[in-house]
Order: sequence, then C-alpha cells, then structure tokens
Amino acid sequence: MKYELYYWPTIQGRGEYVRLALEEAGADYADVARGARGTAAMMKMMAQRGTPPFAPPFLKAGKLVIGQTASILLYLGARHGLAPKTEAGRLWVHQLQLTVTDFVLEVHDTHHPLGPSLYYEDQRGAAKARTDEFWKERVPKYLGYFEKLLRDNGGAYLTGRRIAYIDLSLFQIVEGLRYAFPKRMKAFERRMSGLVELHDRVAARPNIRAYLASDRRIPFNEDGIFRRYPELDK
Amino acid sequence: MKYELYYWPTIQGRGEYVRLALEEAGADYADVARGARGTAAMMKMMAQRGTPPFAPPFLKAGKLVIGQTASILLYLGARHGLAPKTEAGRLWVHQLQLTVTDFVLEVHDTHHPLGPSLYYEDQRGAAKARTDEFWKERVPKYLGYFEKLLRDNGGAYLTGRRIAYIDLSLFQIVEGLRYAFPKRMKAFERRMSGLVELHDRVAARPNIRAYLASDRRIPFNEDGIFRRYPELDK
Repeated sequence: MKYELYYWPTIQGRGEYVRLALEEAGADYADVARGARGTAAMMKMMAQRGTPPFAPPFLKAGKLVIGQTASILLYLGARHGLAPKTEAGRLWVHQLQLTVTDFVLEVHDTHHPLGPSLYYEDQRGAAKARTDEFWKERVPKYLGYFEKLLRDNGGAYLTGRRIAYIDLSLFQIVEGLRYAFPKRMKAFERRMSGLVELHDRVAARPNIRAYLASDRRIPFNEDGIFRRYPELDK
Repeated sequence: MKYELYYWPTIQGRGEYVRLALEEAGADYADVARGARGTAAMMKMMAQRGTPPFAPPFLKAGKLVIGQTASILLYLGARHGLAPKTEAGRLWVHQLQLTVTDFVLEVHDTHHPLGPSLYYEDQRGAAKARTDEFWKERVPKYLGYFEKLLRDNGGAYLTGRRIAYIDLSLFQIVEGLRYAFPKRMKAFERRMSGLVELHDRVAARPNIRAYLASDRRIPFNEDGIFRRYPELDK
C-alpha cells in the first residue's frame, strides 16, 4: 500500500514527525502537497463532509484518513515495527508522543505567545518574555523528563534496545532546538547527554541518514515551528 | 476492576474529561488524590522509575498506568462502549479528542500567554491580547469545525446516534467557556446551535446529571483551565 501524506509543502512543522517515521520504516509514500496541485487536493479533503481532518498533517492509508500527528504515529508504529507489540507498550509510547506534542505547542508559543494568527513582528516583546520562561522552566522540565527515562532505562533507545517512533521525534526536537536557539541550546546540552547520544544514534541510521541528505528533507525556516530569531536566543 | 484516577484534587482541569467518561460509563473508580494522602501517592507515582507519567491526569487500570487525557479516553472508550468498534471509528474519535486537546491548551494560553509558570497578575496585558485573538480567530475555527461535523452528520451525537467520549468533552468545553467568558459566549452561542443542543443532550443523561449534582463534580475556579477574569470577558 502506498501512503499519501498531506502536509504543508514548505515547512517541516508537525508533518516532520510523520515523515521521519515513514522514512525510517522505508514505507512507500507520496508527500502529496509537494507535488503539482497537491495543496489544492489537501484543502479539498479538509472541506469534505464525513470525517474531514481539522488540520494537516493527515495520512491516507487505503480508505482510512488519519489526522493528528500522534494518532498517525500510533497507526504507523503498530504496522512498521516502530512501537512495542503489547498494549501496555503501545500506550506508553503514544503517551510519550503526546507529551512531545504538548512540548511542540509550547515551542510554537515562544514566537507566537499572543496567538497563532498574528504576525511575529507584532508580538516581539511578549515572545521574548515567553522564550525566557520557556528556557528557564519548560525545557528543563520536558527534556529533564526524557533524559531521566533514558538514564533509568539504560537502553540505546527510549523504550529499550529497539527504536520506536518516539526516538525519531526526540531526534527532531534536538535538531529543532539547535536550529532555533543555537546559543541557549549549546549551554543546555551538557544537561542532556543521553538525549544528545540518542540524537546521534538516530541520525546515523541508514534510512534517516539518506533522508536527511535528500531534498525530501525541507530545510528549517521561519515559517515552521522552530524559528531562528536571534533576539530570542539572548 | 476498580480504576484509580490520579489528578489534582481541587480543579476540574484536564482530569475532568476522564471523570466525565468514567461517570457516564458507570465505572467503579477512586479519585485518588481527593482522598487522604492521595496527592502524596500521586507524586510518588510520577517520581518512580520505569514508565512514570509526565503529569496528571493518569489512570491506573490493573497493572496498566496510562497518562495523557486523550490516551486514557482511547483506552476507556474501547472498554465501555464510548467509542465506535471499528479501527476507523476509534481513530476518528481519538483524532477529534486530540483536536479538543489542542483547543484546551489554547484556552489555557488565554490567561497564561507568557508561560504556565508565571502568575496571571504578571501577564494581564498579554492575556487581554491573546484572549481577543482567541475569540476572533480560534473559537470560530475550532467550534465551527465541530458545529459543521454535527450539522453534516445530522445525528444526535458527533459520530451519529450513539454517544462517544468526544461528546462528553464537547459538553465540558461549552460549560467551561460559559463559566470563563459568560458575555463573549452568550454572543457566540447563536453561531453554534448544534453544539448547544449536544451540550443539553449530554447534561440530561442520567449518569451525567447525577454526577453534576454530586460533590464529585468540583466547581469551576481560578486555578483550573477555564478561569473567570472579568477583564478578559470584555
């Protein structure tokens, strides 16, 4: 079965967590909106009756249309060996992914604290305050949680010896924070050696390495979730 | 099996979506942190090794410990007839719940735009700006989406003739917005007659009515997600 991924064609954004899973799995997929008339096809699916997704990303798998990043990963993880086989294991990885989802929303809030529909330029002061609080309180809380899990479990990956989609997402979090906040991240990385090692382990996997070197990987930019605004990086 | 729900004992918050599902199902459960030494027991579970939840709410079901509201509902929905039986149906309701999750985070941002660890009193100006944007752009987008689903599907509930946990969550959204923003909500309700009817239908269900009249339902207050700050209500 060839999957169809629907996501904005010019950013990594929330779609990137799905792209990484599809790439690691070696799955056959089309990144529909990056092709001709793809964005129009995406908008059309969101306007249909029945079970239209609220927003991209969504994945078409045969007749199924699945929206929400974490839900897509729950589905793909079970089918491509990117999650444990037991119900307890699957729920655990899903729960971790939902915590990443919360963190990603907070990352977006650093540059859009007054709301997603206003321009960044109209909320610079608030963005500075929110970013300071984010690095003082939220990054240590979230990344500290994942770092402790890695340390306690002692495995190569977050849930043990085998990779799961949550590891790909944590790779993306490290990549994104390094892009958006190079100075702050450099200072923080000494407190998260386990996550840095996990990042490197994911980056070295053949399918991920090939993906990152390809033009299927869209570069970070200032329209996505992780944005580099030097004034927010101290 | 008797469930154990772990959530902050003095607020509805994110735990309320789980409480509503347990109550509608007539499930046997303890709201642990509301009992003696319950909060200490909750903190202890979050500090353990292995698979500690990141934050409340979490549900203990036998040996399973499930964190993240939407994940708990995914689990409960399948076991208590509060979700469709097909994989497509279960994923669809889960996707809708994850959209409610995103909306709840945006509700919280209306009074905490500069970050969850700062006091409201230190971010009043930003809260006013965020709340204006929330009511101008975000409420119409989210509630308009659910209203359209209700209208298109033509059923008594969001997914048709049978109630699912998403209906309970939408009831809570209406209740919460009415509490926090009585004036703004009053003006908006003429644009969401389907959701208001759904709210009333849920409120009239025997188990929900009994729950709302009991002291198991914690009143809204200014420590929860939905907070009444008159200056944010125009």
